[in-house]
Amino acid sequence: MFVPKKKFNHQKGRYAEKVSTSNRVGLEEDFPEFDAFTDAPTARAPTPADATLSVQKVDMCQQINKPQHRTGAYTTPNLVVRRCQEFRVKVTFNRPLVQSDDFQLEFLIGDYPSPSRGSMVVVTFNSRVGGPWTGRIVDSQGVTVTLGITPTAGAIVGRFRTYVAIVMGTGMQRTPRNATTDLYVLFNAWCRDDDVFLPNERERNEYVLNDHGVMYQGSSEYVNFKDWVYGQFERGILDACIYILDAAKMPIGDRGDIIKMVRVGAAMINSQDDNGVCVGNWSNDYSMGRSPTSWTGSVQILLQYAQSGVPVSFAQCWVFAGVFNTFLRALGIPARTITNFNSAHDSNGNLKTDLIFLPDGSPDTVNTRDSIWNYHCWNEVFMRRYDLPSGFGGWQAVDSTPQETSDGYYRCGPASIVGIKEGWIYHSYDARFVFSEVNSDIIFSKRDRYGTLTPYRVERDYIGKAIYTKSLGSNSPVNITQKYKYPIGSAEDNRTMARADEYGLQRDQSELPENTLSVIITASQVNLGQDVIVQVDFNNQSNIPTTIKANLTGSVIFYTGIRANHLKNHNFTITVPANQRKSEIVKIPADEYIHLLVTQRCLHFVVSGQAEDEAVTAIKVLMLQIPTLTLTLSGLPKVKQEMFAKVTFTNPFNFALKACSLSMEGAGVMHEKTHFYRVIEPQASISWKESFNPQRAGKRCLVAVMDCSNLCELRGVASVDITP
Amino acid sequence: MFVPKKKFNHQKGRYAEKVSTSNRVGLEEDFPEFDAFTDAPTARAPTPADATLSVQKVDMCQQINKPQHRTGAYTTPNLVVRRCQEFRVKVTFNRPLVQSDDFQLEFLIGDYPSPSRGSMVVVTFNSRVGGPWTGRIVDSQGVTVTLGITPTAGAIVGRFRTYVAIVMGTGMQRTPRNATTDLYVLFNAWCRDDDVFLPNERERNEYVLNDHGVMYQGSSEYVNFKDWVYGQFERGILDACIYILDAAKMPIGDRGDIIKMVRVGAAMINSQDDNGVCVGNWSNDYSMGRSPTSWTGSVQILLQYAQSGVPVSFAQCWVFAGVFNTFLRALGIPARTITNFNSAHDSNGNLKTDLIFLPDGSPDTVNTRDSIWNYHCWNEVFMRRYDLPSGFGGWQAVDSTPQETSDGYYRCGPASIVGIKEGWIYHSYDARFVFSEVNSDIIFSKRDRYGTLTPYRVERDYIGKAIYTKSLGSNSPVNITQKYKYPIGSAEDNRTMARADEYGLQRDQSELPENTLSVIITASQVNLGQDVIVQVDFNNQSNIPTTIKANLTGSVIFYTGIRANHLKNHNFTITVPANQRKSEIVKIPADEYIHLLVTQRCLHFVVSGQAEDEAVTAIKVLMLQIPTLTLTLSGLPKVKQEMFAKVTFTNPFNFALKACSLSMEGAGVMHEKTHFYRVIEPQASISWKESFNPQRAGKRCLVAVMDCSNLCELRGVASVDITP
Repeated sequence: MFVPKKKFNHQKGRYAEKVSTSNRVGLEEDFPEFDAFTDAPTARAPTPADATLSVQKVDMCQQINKPQHRTGAYTTPNLVVRRCQEFRVKVTFNRPLVQSDDFQLEFLIGDYPSPSRGSMVVVTFNSRVGGPWTGRIVDSQGVTVTLGITPTAGAIVGRFRTYVAIVMGTGMQRTPRNATTDLYVLFNAWCRDDDVFLPNERERNEYVLNDHGVMYQGSSEYVNFKDWVYGQFERGILDACIYILDAAKMPIGDRGDIIKMVRVGAAMINSQDDNGVCVGNWSNDYSMGRSPTSWTGSVQILLQYAQSGVPVSFAQCWVFAGVFNTFLRALGIPARTITNFNSAHDSNGNLKTDLIFLPDGSPDTVNTRDSIWNYHCWNEVFMRRYDLPSGFGGWQAVDSTPQETSDGYYRCGPASIVGIKEGWIYHSYDARFVFSEVNSDIIFSKRDRYGTLTPYRVERDYIGKAIYTKSLGSNSPVNITQKYKYPIGSAEDNRTMARADEYGLQRDQSELPENTLSVIITASQVNLGQDVIVQVDFNNQSNIPTTIKANLTGSVIFYTGIRANHLKNHNFTITVPANQRKSEIVKIPADEYIHLLVTQRCLHFVVSGQAEDEAVTAIKVLMLQIPTLTLTLSGLPKVKQEMFAKVTFTNPFNFALKACSLSMEGAGVMHEKTHFYRVIEPQASISWKESFNPQRAGKRCLVAVMDCSNLCELRGVASVDITP
Repeated sequence: MFVPKKKFNHQKGRYAEKVSTSNRVGLEEDFPEFDAFTDAPTARAPTPADATLSVQKVDMCQQINKPQHRTGAYTTPNLVVRRCQEFRVKVTFNRPLVQSDDFQLEFLIGDYPSPSRGSMVVVTFNSRVGGPWTGRIVDSQGVTVTLGITPTAGAIVGRFRTYVAIVMGTGMQRTPRNATTDLYVLFNAWCRDDDVFLPNERERNEYVLNDHGVMYQGSSEYVNFKDWVYGQFERGILDACIYILDAAKMPIGDRGDIIKMVRVGAAMINSQDDNGVCVGNWSNDYSMGRSPTSWTGSVQILLQYAQSGVPVSFAQCWVFAGVFNTFLRALGIPARTITNFNSAHDSNGNLKTDLIFLPDGSPDTVNTRDSIWNYHCWNEVFMRRYDLPSGFGGWQAVDSTPQETSDGYYRCGPASIVGIKEGWIYHSYDARFVFSEVNSDIIFSKRDRYGTLTPYRVERDYIGKAIYTKSLGSNSPVNITQKYKYPIGSAEDNRTMARADEYGLQRDQSELPENTLSVIITASQVNLGQDVIVQVDFNNQSNIPTTIKANLTGSVIFYTGIRANHLKNHNFTITVPANQRKSEIVKIPADEYIHLLVTQRCLHFVVSGQAEDEAVTAIKVLMLQIPTLTLTLSGLPKVKQEMFAKVTFTNPFNFALKACSLSMEGAGVMHEKTHFYRVIEPQASISWKESFNPQRAGKRCLVAVMDCSNLCELRGVASVDITP
């Protein structure tokens, strides 16, 4: 682990020096092995005698504790338990205990542990007061005593050191520091008293224990699946997550508080402000690091960060969400990633997304500042909200993608989903921002020759079109839009919007002309390399024919809605008979767009039509599809047996793929492996076979991703049931 | 002004590139002087003819506008106005206007001004739609037209560029860029529609227009006055405040929003995270910069920051509060500094301040992590809270002193003072933190020989003892404690505490034994160099004599309550007869403490007494007083006449003062001047006379401060009425 250098201490006169903000191992100075009572000035260590009680062995009972605490999957030599649930420790003494013996267990975390901070816990097994964790003697067999210890529901989460101390005359005799008895304490979604209690077992299995997941991309009409290896149980990941808290200099005493933990996590997963985990990059130039599309999961990122202490390059929203999800689940916090299709990022936070058009109907790219992301991924965390009035617990939105518009700082949430649905936008934290991401209106305005804007159309149901998360136990998405909002126009929705208005939402109130004309764009879903057909349908609902001056503008965009390249500008005039529809069809040959594509292979069309006294506009986003990698598994699917994964791919395009990096990974089955191809000619095939030994039983997934310099994110996935 | 270098643009694919975050002058590319209409493809500039309207002169009418907008004090060649109040512009044309003439005024701010952001405002004077600022023709005399322009109540605050554009055939003919017609628009506390509307004229004069103030230090029993030159009207300060917003990369479109402005300000006044204005330093080692106690006001700090772009060293809370106050008032926002005596900074945010004692009664400095600041200064801002339910407007706490415990980031507020008083601690922003600063309980605990803590006493009325701010029109403090809280134990206070508990306050609920024994410490106020007499009074209210084992510990502390040096440990046993008092008197000769002092000259005593079955504790903080500088003024007190300021001082101590830096400054009268003395021997005198020319009339103050390497902050102040 990277240890930050000590800086000049400007704070010397501000803090009692010893506030611990580190849970790293190896630098602690705990109590001496013989610790004389300060109220017994002549104390000295007693001379050992046969009758003197001493500790022979401390056994953390991993085989008993792990299944009960559902922590067997963590790849670490130390015991991992969940708080507010009893775990066992077996202590073997040199002789059977007698009535007068007095001993205690001590659990210490961080430097300078203190009972007033919960970072030094004394567990007693007789009438002497200890606490706040409770202890009991479960069983006593000869010289071996089995102890039951229950951490409190608010216990600090992290790595504790375990000591046994025996009261002995004028002092305490302690066991020496022994790293193998160190103990990780996690949040506990199974415990009713824990702030992260989640009542449903299937949900706990998915949101705490599943180390593989899927994020959804593309558009609400044509969803792309992105498998993601969360890998929260892989070797080093739990330590890396604790390292993140250390890098944030989070006081040890705060690490039992779910809200503080989540907020520190949200701030630390991005590198802004605080040298956090991931560096955001939306430039299409990733030469200084690894492309955001090339990752197979969170594991490499977290390990690299913890080893180097330097932010990892590069991430976009799904990477931030994936890594944050790993962080949360690793610490025992129920969490999931969600995708909001058509996510508003209004640059001035006025809850209106302004799209501006020139007098001729073409988009005014100079004056349009807001963008609509095709999709945006963030996280949800399940928790009690002790800080809010009742009724706002449950799922909370948190977002670690850096967003300048969220109050200037680079984190967001937790914001109660119920609160967002009901319009309580002034609740902590950042509810207003999340509300606008799913509820903004799009205002279409014309900019006249004098520079004045006139709104002519408001679209209320484009933003937050659909919100998806992975369903329980399967890879298909479940639509949770109704958790965030009521149906548009319903009485409940009107109540929510009225409430949000009351707290300064400033929704658009423009009075707009009634329309008799409408327009829609459709484009057939095609593969990259095929021609694109765009159809514009005008519908004239009036009783007189209408002549429309229209403009169709095509662009290649980033998934953030920002134009990467201009593709096409097509002006046309069309006359629609009374009460009829009429179409204009525009064909874009593959040759015309293929050299303009960027990372996301996303085309964006906007049509504006100006009739004599009304204007209409429609938008269409089209994701070009690409083939998948073929990933096949062979061999005996059994723990620790050798198996093989084979990736094959044939380049179907009429251009060569260059500088192709192919990676494979699977949680509990294979660490990331990477293979590099300088060039894959048109119609050429590649095939790569790797052996691996599954480490854990159950349904396991492998993910393969290939990123080339001129085409990114060819994906493949395979799953297999591993028997124990 | 410092211009930040462009970094590699990771955000290219995230934002339409042209989001303006800069209000700096000289780099704008506005419209061309002849701007053809885009819907008139064959447009070209018309050939000038006698009959063609053109602009001869634009007069910003400073003599009329300044007094009406109360902005005459700003030392800038440009017009400064307050928004949502009409100002005048006189335009002189080449000929009288006729019916068919069409012209408009354009006010542009930042790069890439846009009407949808409010950063390009078109003001029309006929029926043609412009907006959102309104315009009218006030008067038309021959070729000169007097125009009245009213910015909206939500107008962007900053420096606008002014253009006159004439509609001319196929395009617009504009006046060329002319920096002398640039216009500063500020918040307007005089305007009912502005979110910073403050109804009372005396309050507006103090909280917006007063450029000199006083902050209070020391203790609630013995208040020290610290005069501070806010200097918001001095040359360059308004530009420096706008530069701070630019350095924060605050979007121009957000700069009309009071909450966003205040939050950006709170984040930027400290240097953490964002390379803001002031570097905090509580180390007692200020060799890398200027000592926090050596500043006379905000002006030097802001000018140095704006010129270098580099954070200024060094600040402690009153410096942050002073500079923040200047920033707020300069922008027209009603603001004041306040002092909270005995301010809690509990390091784990549990709203309990834990003081821990060893079995022998002496403070357990190893395990005590919380501290109580003797005082802490922050700011209040007066504003509407459009984002909260009604009733929470008015004064809001904001704090730019970096506070690690405030949610991990370095800013705090705005938090409604009414909300804090009523216990609505979940309201935005940081209400919980401010609540704890004024309401924490002190928990006195004994740490037993086994490491277990037992609370034995809770003090509920020590923290937030008194909250002071400067009174209107005078330098004496006014106690505003009742604005923050109800009397302890009142029904209203109980309601507030119950409400705060409901939202997760976690107040201490320990059941404590009833006491019959009490103790207080008193210490007579003395000057530095005199012996200190500490008196400890035990009061035994029981009917039997009590023998007490007691410990008195004395320390030198920083104003943050942190121990700088150990001074004394005095153990004694005292027997107090039934129903009587008994005292122990301890004398500390000057020689014993003088070599241990640090910046704040603050002694801290704590006494603990242990009787058979109860324990008592008391705390006393003693500020040693020092002499003042003598500051006398002479000469004719009239604007632009020469006057003289003379500082004299005789060293009364028996040690030499070394490396003494003496500074003088007065808002509107004298820029900071500094004089250096290598050594001032015991009983030696210094005298320094400086000439100055007052720039502004009215009651003006001069402040002198002398900081030596071994004694800091000898202060002097003088005031004078300057006639116009």
